[in-house]
Amino acid sequence: MSDYADPDILVSTAWVAEHSRDAGIRVVEVDVDTSSYAQGHVDGSIGWNWQTELQHAVRRDILDPLGFAELMRRSGITPDTTVVLYGDNNNWFACWALWLLSFYGHAKLRLMNGGRKKWIEEKRPLSTATVAATPSHYPVPAPNLDLRARRDHIFAVLEGQRSAHLVDVRSPDEFTGKVIAPPGMTETAQRGGHIPGAASIPWAQAVLEDGTFKTADALRQLYAGKGVTGDKEVIAYCRIGERSAHTWFVLRYLLGYGRVRNYDGSWTEWGNIVGAPIERELAATAVG
Amino acid sequence: MSDYADPDILVSTAWVAEHSRDAGIRVVEVDVDTSSYAQGHVDGSIGWNWQTELQHAVRRDILDPLGFAELMRRSGITPDTTVVLYGDNNNWFACWALWLLSFYGHAKLRLMNGGRKKWIEEKRPLSTATVAATPSHYPVPAPNLDLRARRDHIFAVLEGQRSAHLVDVRSPDEFTGKVIAPPGMTETAQRGGHIPGAASIPWAQAVLEDGTFKTADALRQLYAGKGVTGDKEVIAYCRIGERSAHTWFVLRYLLGYGRVRNYDGSWTEWGNIVGAPIERELAATAVG
Repeated sequence: MSDYADPDILVSTAWVAEHSRDAGIRVVEVDVDTSSYAQGHVDGSIGWNWQTELQHAVRRDILDPLGFAELMRRSGITPDTTVVLYGDNNNWFACWALWLLSFYGHAKLRLMNGGRKKWIEEKRPLSTATVAATPSHYPVPAPNLDLRARRDHIFAVLEGQRSAHLVDVRSPDEFTGKVIAPPGMTETAQRGGHIPGAASIPWAQAVLEDGTFKTADALRQLYAGKGVTGDKEVIAYCRIGERSAHTWFVLRYLLGYGRVRNYDGSWTEWGNIVGAPIERELAATAVG
Repeated sequence: MSDYADPDILVSTAWVAEHSRDAGIRVVEVDVDTSSYAQGHVDGSIGWNWQTELQHAVRRDILDPLGFAELMRRSGITPDTTVVLYGDNNNWFACWALWLLSFYGHAKLRLMNGGRKKWIEEKRPLSTATVAATPSHYPVPAPNLDLRARRDHIFAVLEGQRSAHLVDVRSPDEFTGKVIAPPGMTETAQRGGHIPGAASIPWAQAVLEDGTFKTADALRQLYAGKGVTGDKEVIAYCRIGERSAHTWFVLRYLLGYGRVRNYDGSWTEWGNIVGAPIERELAATAVG
């Protein structure tokens, strides 16, 4: 892993198996399927429910600084704790949680390469024990606003007031507008298509079959091949911001791009906003 | 009907039956169920499909001035034509179309009281004949921006920079946040609840069993009873702006409120916007 820009950000399943109960380390599972943790998790890990614990309870927003500090406290995390994240679906929400921690300035972060799937495929033990965290002290943080894209950033890019690469990490059918959301998904929008000028680089192209990340060279080729380089800011988006957090992680930590934002509003915001510019590319597929 | 502020805005089914082919009159059917017109319509009427003809084809927006003029031209409507609107579901999208015409300054507007349902219940004839409109001339209009609320108006009201009554015309369960959208509806949002400070006055309370409007006195009581008077601007919203167009129609034409806006972005915009303030009232229903 040593050719990554920040090789320490990734830890292996074997490393986690050995250190999951070490002092100063807190392993946290965050899943798309919020019932997975209860079915069995890494020994010593705690679970965060992205729907009820990582977001504002009423309005659509991430935790505010007070809510974030409270989450850290009840999780037994101090500013000096190394937080190791992992989860299902190729670490989608584990990356999202890592983005949130980074947004609030938590310094010591790790991601378990391959996530829950790799752990299970290696037949490593799953615990159903409840983990009681000793409440900690955690100061109310200031957000690092440079890591987050808001709708106004996107409008500014489209109006030429900002310069940024836009990366759409959804599936090709979502990008073209053939579908508004993958089948069965409830997070939908009024319109299909993509933000004008965005490059289509589905998140899954960054990982291997076993869910671990491709080499730095392969990743660099992937993004640079679509014109997405570190020369200017990059904004990644998907539908609700979790798949784009995965790409955000790749660009920021594995390739070391200096300015990468996750647009957590993503398509469920953009595709519902009155007047927001959209491109659709259905014509090409309809022409036989 | 003479106690309405603008009694001429409403026409009866009997009047339409007599005048639907008069020179200078164009009857237009606009339905929620876009297949209804083809199944049978008022003789001489043309049909507009709200999904494909009244909105921008790609981004979420109403027709732009050029698109609107083109719609009028191919519908054989000139600035001097009296446009009589009707449709299914208590004239929801007929009201929405009337709002659109009003937004673009078309002066001569009528709504058939009771809509398609009343016409059918009275066993009036339904035609399946295709109506060929002679293309007309229609100048590209300037919009009357005072009739439309944008998300920034709502933010300004919430931040105390504007004064307006907000009226939520959705069902009580949508208002409280118990459901995000009625069952089976695809227009949904990330969050349930309502805009803080909005009065809950479901659109259906403005009509009688047969779909015709209540008397002016009853309507005045209904809205004033919830504090929504003509003393300041009123902004109505629902989920995609069609039910709120119905309430907009009532307030503007039947009660004669001077400043009424339809928020066509409505809940599918607001409930998806990152950081938009929302109120939910589930606690009260959970307390036994």
